[in-house]
Amino acid sequence: MTTLEGRQDDVSLSELKKKMADFAKERDWDQFHSPRNLLLALVGEVGELSEIFQWKGEVPRGLPGWEDEEKQHLGEELSDVLLYLVRLSDICGVDLGKAVLRKLEINATKYPVKLSKGSSKKLNQIINNSLPPPTSTTTTNSDSSSSNIKDGGSHDGV
Amino acid sequence: MTTLEGRQDDVSLSELKKKMADFAKERDWDQFHSPRNLLLALVGEVGELSEIFQWKGEVPRGLPGWEDEEKQHLGEELSDVLLYLVRLSDICGVDLGKAVLRKLEINATKYPVKLSKGSSKKLNQIINNSLPPPTSTTTTNSDSSSSNIKDGGSHDGV
Amino acid sequence: MTTLEGRQDDVSLSELKKKMADFAKERDWDQFHSPRNLLLALVGEVGELSEIFQWKGEVPRGLPGWEDEEKQHLGEELSDVLLYLVRLSDICGVDLGKAVLRKLEINATKYPVKLSKGSSKKLNQIINNSLPPPTSTTTTNSDSSSSNIKDGGSHDGV
Amino acid sequence: MTTLEGRQDDVSLSELKKKMADFAKERDWDQFHSPRNLLLALVGEVGELSEIFQWKGEVPRGLPGWEDEEKQHLGEELSDVLLYLVRLSDICGVDLGKAVLRKLEINATKYPVKLSKGSSKKLNQIINNSLPPPTSTTTTNSDSSSSNIKDGGSHDGV
Repeated sequence: MTTLEGRQDDVSLSELKKKMADFAKERDWDQFHSPRNLLLALVGEVGELSEIFQWKGEVPRGLPGWEDEEKQHLGEELSDVLLYLVRLSDICGVDLGKAVLRKLEINATKYPVKLSKGSSKKLNQIINNSLPPPTSTTTTNSDSSSSNIKDGGSHDGV
Repeated sequence: MTTLEGRQDDVSLSELKKKMADFAKERDWDQFHSPRNLLLALVGEVGELSEIFQWKGEVPRGLPGWEDEEKQHLGEELSDVLLYLVRLSDICGVDLGKAVLRKLEINATKYPVKLSKGSSKKLNQIINNSLPPPTSTTTTNSDSSSSNIKDGGSHDGV
Repeated sequence: MTTLEGRQDDVSLSELKKKMADFAKERDWDQFHSPRNLLLALVGEVGELSEIFQWKGEVPRGLPGWEDEEKQHLGEELSDVLLYLVRLSDICGVDLGKAVLRKLEINATKYPVKLSKGSSKKLNQIINNSLPPPTSTTTTNSDSSSSNIKDGGSHDGV
Repeated sequence: MTTLEGRQDDVSLSELKKKMADFAKERDWDQFHSPRNLLLALVGEVGELSEIFQWKGEVPRGLPGWEDEEKQHLGEELSDVLLYLVRLSDICGVDLGKAVLRKLEINATKYPVKLSKGSSKKLNQIINNSLPPPTSTTTTNSDSSSSNIKDGGSHDGV
């Protein structure tokens, strides 16, 4: 992302918001863009995103072995979710850029590096988590200190 | 967004991607961030977003009458969805900024202003839509040409 | 459902479970029916269900004005969600019939008729609800005691 | 399910429908149970269901190693999805028992045993599938006849 080309592909949340607003206005689609209409459209796109992964079993990072066509389809579904999310935020009067930067700060406070990195027990103690801690079913490890899959069970938004 | 303050609140997709990658690395959370783990976490956040709207009936744009605390909560859930979406894209090797700009171009081609704005029938003819066209149940209009709620039934990503 | 015909259309959860198990076995599809595969397939079907409602604005009970074709499509999507839910439960070793009857008892205890019916304030007091209480944005009522849309904000599973 | 006790735990869709209708009526909750309210509540419960599985990686059938408390929690979330689904169907005027039996017949016609069981290529030829066929990324097999993970990419509702 340091090359000129890379920078051209980057886009900010407020730029996306404006593009979506212009797109809807040009087509007289504002009438359909109520909060709950957009929310249900978002859910529909999340469903399409899930369908891409549904019969695959566990998928490694980077999606080795996926065909180009399938990767491109994935990019489109990820984009559809993003576009509805940006539009929903705008219609609700939520500044998504501001909100997400604030949420990152909240998360950093909620999951301090020292506590989150070390023993999973310490982390679980500081998290008010209504769900029972997940038990690792895929890894077996005699070393109890390595059972920090539990760390992952509680954090959200990250 | 033209003031200095406004600009500070804006953020690009590649900046978010980097923030999320750093956050996970600092906490040794990369091990939990597989594609399907992140996808299910995203679905979980979409569920929390939906819960905010679930008992409200139709909600007007701008959310008039919502309390500040509730709006703030909404901003957090929207952000959680965004953060997992950005992270999922990164882990899958999808350049989300590039993909979303490309998707906007696809949508502009798919829904040309002239056809999308006028009669709903013309739009429906050019769209390969597997769903039956939605029937407007909330608006009653004696002018049949104004039943262009049907326009909304097919477009996606916008 | 008191006629012979009506009774023929009814089906129990254990009957559905058996039908799904037989269906998968006959086609050698057990290999695809892992818990998370089925869960993502369920999410996909919920997305398709949401698409039916996404551009409609508020929809009245009984779906007046919907065309037969659209209602039939709705029945198919509701069924797809149900079938994956039944199959997911079976594959996880959860007796869904037993679990749902137990959940109904839990809900009856959690939301006693007397407290849930009267003032919304009483209900809110007995519910440990992490979400802010929803504000009615669709109904306006001068009588403050009638704002029991708040009752709905907390209950789940019912 | 052959013991008396087992039979007591089974329940039919029409029985569940009646239980839900009575529950809502007793609490004056019919006013909250509009189609889109119930749909969003369903999405919320699917989110909670997903959260149970989100950090686990692939989970084997039968959930070996899960603690009783976690299994019970899973049963409750599966039940919540079912209860909202039954209620949503009822409020929409859809006979879910009838619809699901009809959908099973549709699926049996759509995926005939002979074609679905044998070569995956034959199956893919008869299925009108908008998604690219999934590529197995988790199993490597020199025996081409075992690549029938592709079979799973297209079937729905089963």
